[in-house]
Amino acid sequence: MSVTINPQIQLVSRPHGEASADNFRLVEVAMPELQDGQVLVRNHFLSLDPYMRGRMNEGKSYAQPQPLNEVMLGGTVGEVVASKNASFAVGDKVVGMGGWQHYFIVDASQRGMLQKVDATHIPLSAFLGAVGMPGVTAWYGLVKIINPKAGETVVVSAASGAVGSVVGQLAKARGARVVGLAGGAEKCRYVQEELGFDACIDYKPHADVKSLSAALKTACPDGIDGYFENVGGLILDAVMSRANAFSRVAMCGMIAGYNGEPIPMSAPQLILVNRMKVEGFIVSEHMEVWPEALKELGTLVATGRLKFRESVSEGLASAPEAFLGLLKGRNFGKQLVRLV
Amino acid sequence: MSVTINPQIQLVSRPHGEASADNFRLVEVAMPELQDGQVLVRNHFLSLDPYMRGRMNEGKSYAQPQPLNEVMLGGTVGEVVASKNASFAVGDKVVGMGGWQHYFIVDASQRGMLQKVDATHIPLSAFLGAVGMPGVTAWYGLVKIINPKAGETVVVSAASGAVGSVVGQLAKARGARVVGLAGGAEKCRYVQEELGFDACIDYKPHADVKSLSAALKTACPDGIDGYFENVGGLILDAVMSRANAFSRVAMCGMIAGYNGEPIPMSAPQLILVNRMKVEGFIVSEHMEVWPEALKELGTLVATGRLKFRESVSEGLASAPEAFLGLLKGRNFGKQLVRLV
Repeated sequence: MSVTINPQIQLVSRPHGEASADNFRLVEVAMPELQDGQVLVRNHFLSLDPYMRGRMNEGKSYAQPQPLNEVMLGGTVGEVVASKNASFAVGDKVVGMGGWQHYFIVDASQRGMLQKVDATHIPLSAFLGAVGMPGVTAWYGLVKIINPKAGETVVVSAASGAVGSVVGQLAKARGARVVGLAGGAEKCRYVQEELGFDACIDYKPHADVKSLSAALKTACPDGIDGYFENVGGLILDAVMSRANAFSRVAMCGMIAGYNGEPIPMSAPQLILVNRMKVEGFIVSEHMEVWPEALKELGTLVATGRLKFRESVSEGLASAPEAFLGLLKGRNFGKQLVRLV
Repeated sequence: MSVTINPQIQLVSRPHGEASADNFRLVEVAMPELQDGQVLVRNHFLSLDPYMRGRMNEGKSYAQPQPLNEVMLGGTVGEVVASKNASFAVGDKVVGMGGWQHYFIVDASQRGMLQKVDATHIPLSAFLGAVGMPGVTAWYGLVKIINPKAGETVVVSAASGAVGSVVGQLAKARGARVVGLAGGAEKCRYVQEELGFDACIDYKPHADVKSLSAALKTACPDGIDGYFENVGGLILDAVMSRANAFSRVAMCGMIAGYNGEPIPMSAPQLILVNRMKVEGFIVSEHMEVWPEALKELGTLVATGRLKFRESVSEGLASAPEAFLGLLKGRNFGKQLVRLV
C-alpha cells in the first residue's frame, strides 16, 4: 500500500491567554516510504486531552513544548495498514502517539512506541479513555496517592470527564463515599445516576469559595479524606477548607490556570494544620503500574462494571474546535475525534 | 518538701493580630498536696516554641487552643524535688510538659508524661532543643519526608533556629548541599561558618519573590530538591520557583501567617508541573520515630558533631517578652527561659 498524501493538523502559533482556532492549521503532507522495522498506522480515533494545552505554551513545563509547524502530538488508536516489522501485521489494532493526522509511521522496534490491543470485548476507543492513559491516570492518583480506606470520603473534580469518572468508580469499588464536582446539572445527574457517585455538586452556581465550601459541607458531612484535582483555583480552596486531618490530594491537572490566569492556593497553612499530603504526578513517569492498572480497568470495562461516556467529533478538521471546547468543559466524557 | 506558692504565667486573652504582653499575666497559685503516683518537679528551663502562637488562637487547629486563665503549656526540663512514684527519685533530671511556672505536679505513672534524661554528656537544656522536640521535628521532616540523597540540594528556612539548625546539619551529614535562609547577616554568618551550611541567604533585603528567587538561583545552581518549611509566604513562593522535578517540601511551620495574615501560595500548579510532594506533619503524632531520632541526635550532640545555640532569657517574668521576640525572629537559636 502506498500512501502519498497525509492530512494533518499542525500548531502554527502559541496562544496568548486563551487558545484559539488560529493557533492550528490543517495541511497535507507527503508520506515517506516505509523503512525496515517501521509500521504504517491508519488512525481511527484521536484523543484530545487537557495536558495538550500546557504543551502549546513555550517554556518550562514537565513536557517539552509542542514544536511549531509540526503535527500536534497526541494519543491515537488505529489499525496497521502496512508493516515492515515482524511483530506487527496488517489489521492489528494498535495504540500509539499517532498525532492529529490520518496516518503515521512509527519505528515499532522501539519499546513502547506502539501497543497491540485486543478489542474483542472492549471498544477500540476505550483504549484512549478508561482503558488507556486517562484510566491509568485515575488509577495511579487514586490508588497510589489517595489510597482510600473504606468509609473515607473522596472528592473528584471534572467528575464526568475521562479521568474523573474513573477515579470515582474506582473509589466506590474500594468502599469510599464519593462526591463529584462537575459543570452543570446534566453532568451532575449523569455522575450520580449513571456512574453511581454518592453526590455530585454543580460548581457553576458557586461564585466564591465560601459558597462552594458550604455545598461541600452538605455533601461531605464527615469531611474530605482524599481529593483528586483536575481543576485548581477556587475549587481547590473550597475542598481544602473541608479537608480532614491526614487527607491526601492527588494533583493531576489544574485546567483553571492553563491560560496563564493566577490560581493561588489561599491557605497553604491548611496543609500543615491538617497534616495533608499534596502530590503532583504524571502517569507516563510511572510505567511500572500500567500493567496492574490496565488489567483492573480492562476487566471492569469488559464486564460492564466501569462506565464511561464519550464526546465524539467527526473528522480531522473538527479537532481544533473540539479541543477548544474541551478546555471550556463543553465535552461530556472522553473527547475523541473519529477519523474512520 | 512542701511548696505552697507556685509562680506561673497564664494566658488571659487571645490576640487580635499580633500577640502582646497584655495577653499574659504572672500569678501565684497554691500547690496542692502530692498524691500517690505523683511527682513534683522544679522546672529549670522552659522551652518557647513558635507552635505556641497557634495555640493562643481560638478555633480549629491541630492542637486544642490554650485555655484562658490557665498556665501556658509548654515543654520543660527540670529536677524531681518530691516523689510519691517508685519510678522517680528526688534529684532525677526530667523532661515533661511542665508549663510556664516554677513547679508542676504530674501523675508519672501515665506513660509519656515524664521522661528521665541522662545529662552526663548532654547539657540539660539541650533536651528542649537539639535532643528534644525541635530536634526530632527536624529529624522527621528531613529523614521521613525530604529523605535527601547525597548530592541533592536541601533548603531550610529559619536556619539558625532550634529546628532549622538541626535540619541543615543532618542534611549535611547525609551528603546533601545545604542552603539556609535566615534573618540578618549575623545569623547567616553563624549558619554558614559555625553550622557548616554551604550557603545562607539573608531574606530581609529581599522585598519580593523575584529578588529572593534570584538569590536562591545563585545559592542553588542545581535547583532545590528538598525544602524544610518553617516560615511560609514569600519564602515558600521563592523556593517553589526553584524547585526541581520530584522535590519534597516538609511543612513544619508557617510563622508568616501566625497572626492571621493571608499567606497564599502563588503558584500551586508548580506542585503538578514539578511533580512535587508537599506534606505537613506534627512530630508528636510520630512517636514511633522518637527513639531512633533521639539516639542519633543525642550521639551527635554528646560527641560535638551537632552544634546548636541558645537564647536564654532569665526568670519566669521574662517569658512573655522572650516569646514575643521569638515570633519576630529576635532570638538566636533555641529560645529558653532559665528558672534555676
